[in-house]
Amino acid sequence: MKFICEKSNLQEAVFTVQKAITGKSSMPILNGILIETNGSELILTGSDIDLSITTKIEATILEEGSVIINAKLFGEIIRRLPNDDINIETIDDNTTQILCKKSKFNIINMNTNDFPELPNINENMLFSIPENILKNMIRETIFATAQDETRPILTGILFEIKNKTINLIALDGYRLALRFETLDNDNEINAVIPGKTLNEVSKILEDREDNVDITFTPNHILFNLGKTKIVSRLLEGEFIKYKSIIPEEFNLKVTAKREELLNCIERASLMAKDSNTNLIKLNIEENNMIITSNSQLGMVKEEVNIILQGSTLQIAFNSKYLIDVLKIMDEEEIILNFSSSVSPCVIKNKDKNNCTYLVLPVRLLNN
Amino acid sequence: MKFICEKSNLQEAVFTVQKAITGKSSMPILNGILIETNGSELILTGSDIDLSITTKIEATILEEGSVIINAKLFGEIIRRLPNDDINIETIDDNTTQILCKKSKFNIINMNTNDFPELPNINENMLFSIPENILKNMIRETIFATAQDETRPILTGILFEIKNKTINLIALDGYRLALRFETLDNDNEINAVIPGKTLNEVSKILEDREDNVDITFTPNHILFNLGKTKIVSRLLEGEFIKYKSIIPEEFNLKVTAKREELLNCIERASLMAKDSNTNLIKLNIEENNMIITSNSQLGMVKEEVNIILQGSTLQIAFNSKYLIDVLKIMDEEEIILNFSSSVSPCVIKNKDKNNCTYLVLPVRLLNN
Repeated sequence: MKFICEKSNLQEAVFTVQKAITGKSSMPILNGILIETNGSELILTGSDIDLSITTKIEATILEEGSVIINAKLFGEIIRRLPNDDINIETIDDNTTQILCKKSKFNIINMNTNDFPELPNINENMLFSIPENILKNMIRETIFATAQDETRPILTGILFEIKNKTINLIALDGYRLALRFETLDNDNEINAVIPGKTLNEVSKILEDREDNVDITFTPNHILFNLGKTKIVSRLLEGEFIKYKSIIPEEFNLKVTAKREELLNCIERASLMAKDSNTNLIKLNIEENNMIITSNSQLGMVKEEVNIILQGSTLQIAFNSKYLIDVLKIMDEEEIILNFSSSVSPCVIKNKDKNNCTYLVLPVRLLNN
Repeated sequence: MKFICEKSNLQEAVFTVQKAITGKSSMPILNGILIETNGSELILTGSDIDLSITTKIEATILEEGSVIINAKLFGEIIRRLPNDDINIETIDDNTTQILCKKSKFNIINMNTNDFPELPNINENMLFSIPENILKNMIRETIFATAQDETRPILTGILFEIKNKTINLIALDGYRLALRFETLDNDNEINAVIPGKTLNEVSKILEDREDNVDITFTPNHILFNLGKTKIVSRLLEGEFIKYKSIIPEEFNLKVTAKREELLNCIERASLMAKDSNTNLIKLNIEENNMIITSNSQLGMVKEEVNIILQGSTLQIAFNSKYLIDVLKIMDEEEIILNFSSSVSPCVIKNKDKNNCTYLVLPVRLLNN
C-alpha cells in the first residue's frame, strides 16, 4: 500500500473514526484504524464491534492495499505533523512508513485479516433528517438515559417512527425525555439505539441542514452522512411502554420563565448538595413559586414569579432532575403541569410543541 | 455584622482569597473565609496557615463585626446570585443571612476566635517589581521544582537578590531553571518560597506593569499588591549551591529555531512514550540535528536545521525535560551548549539574556 494525502484531510478522518475506538479493548486489533485504498480514495474504519465508523478521503493512491495501525499513536503522529502532504507506505508485512517533510516514522502495523467484518447493510434508505435537527433531538433526550446497566434497554434511546412523526424517548426510572419532529415518511419503526452510539453520532453530526440518511435492519442502524457512515447494533429487548407513564390531565398548570426558574433551583440546590437526595421543596402559590431547601449547612429560600392555573401545591424533587431538564430546554417560557405531591411533573415549552419532559417527585414523610 | 456590597466585587474578592484555601483541611475553620468589617471596607481572608491571602473591597457597613463562612459554599452562592447589591448580616451567633433580590440564604457560620492569627509583618518594603515580570519569572521557573517531597527544599523556588539582580532558581535533580532581571535595589536576600505559594501568587498577579511590593522576614514573605496581600512561610533549609552545577565552558554550541526543534522533539517523543524513560537520541552534525527514538511501537527520525560551532556529538535525553524547557521559552532562536554525552546541556536565548536552563542527559550503555 502506498498513498499521498493532505495532512488536514487525514487528521479530520482519523478524528472521526477514532470515535468508535475505545482504545481500551482487550483485542489489540480493535484499538487500530483500518486504512484501505479504493480507487482514488482512502477508506478509514474504526470499530468496537458494537459501533463502527467508516469515512473516506481523497488521496493519490500509488499502490493498492490495506493496513491496521494503532489509532491513538497514528492520530497523535498525524496531528503533530506539519501541514503538508503525507506519504504513507507499507515497507514490509509489519511496518508502515509515514513521511512528511523531514519527519520519518516506521510504525508496527497489524494484520488486516483479523479485523472484524462490518455488518453488511442493504441501504434501502428508510428516512432522512437534517443533521442539525437529529443532533438537537439526541442532545435533548440523551441525558435521561440510564447510566447503570441493571436494565440495559434503558441505556439507549427509543427511535419510534409512525404517523409521519419521529419520537426519541429516553427514561431512567426517575425522569423521561421525549422529543419529536414531523417526518415526510410513511414507515413504522421501533428501535432502541445505544446511548454510547448516539453520543458519538451527535459529535459527528454538524450544525447544518444537510440530510443524514438512516437505515434500519432488525439488528442494526446505519447513519449515512455521505463521506462518513456509522453502523451500530441495536439494543435487544422491549422498551418500556412509555405512553402510559405520561399523564394527560393535570390539576395545576404553572407558566414560568425557564432561565429564572433554573437559576433559583440551582441556587437552592447548593444547600441540598450536602445530602445525597438533592432535595428541594416547591411551594406553588398564586403568582409565586417558593423554593426552599434545608441541610446541616443552613437553609435557602428562593421566589419565582409564575402564573398558576389551578389549586396551590407543595411538592418535593431531586433538584438534579429538574436542573437537567431546564438546562436542556431552550425556549424562554415553559409550562409545568402537576396533579398532586406524589404524581409526576410534566414540563413542556409554552410555545414550541416538540418535547415532553417528565420528572417524578420525591415523596416526603409528612406528605 | 451587617453590610451591603456589590455582587461582582464580592465575587472577585472571594475568588482571590479562596486560592489560599485547600478546602480539604482537617481543621474546618481553615475551609472558611474570614470576613471582617473595617471602616468603609470589608476585609476577606483565606489561610491554610502556610499561605494566607487577604483582600479588601468597598462596602456599606451598617454594623461592625466579623464572621467565618465555609469558602466553597459561600463562593458558589455569591457566584450564582444575580448581579445586584448583596445584603449580608449575622442574625445570631451561628447564622449568617445573605439576601439578594428574592434569594435568601441562612448559612451556618463559624466562630472567628478560632481563626489562626496571621504573621505580623513589618512592611519595611524590601523591593518592588512589576506584576507582569514577576508573573513571567515564576512561570518560567516553577516547572522545574521537584514534585516529590523527598527533599522539601527543592519543591520551592530560590529568590536570590544581590548586585542589583534578582534570580529565581528551581531545580529537581534532572534539570534546572534560572531566570533573572536587573533590580534597582541594594539588598541581599536568599529565601526559598514554596512552589505551591508561587503557583497561587502567579494566578493572582495580572499581566500589567503595576508594581508588587515584596517584604521578607526570616520566616515569611509578603507580596503586597495594594488591595491584596499574600503572606507565605518560607521553606526551611539550605538551597543547593546551584552555581557549581552550571558549566561555563562548552565544546559545542548549537543555534536552533526553538519552535521547529520543539515540534520535532514532541513528535519523536510519541515513540518514546511507550517506555518510562521518554528516551530520545540527538545526533548533532554539521548543519543538522537528527532526533531518533525507538520502542516496541516502531521508530522515528526527525531532522532539524541547526548551526553547529564545535565538534559533532551523540547524546540522549528524557524528552520531557527538553520539551518543558522549549515550551516555556519564548524567543525564536535559542542556543544549546554541550560538552560531551555525559555532561549537562545548557540552553539560553540567542538574543535576550535573561534565563539559563540546564538538562541532564541520559547515559546510554553504549556511550
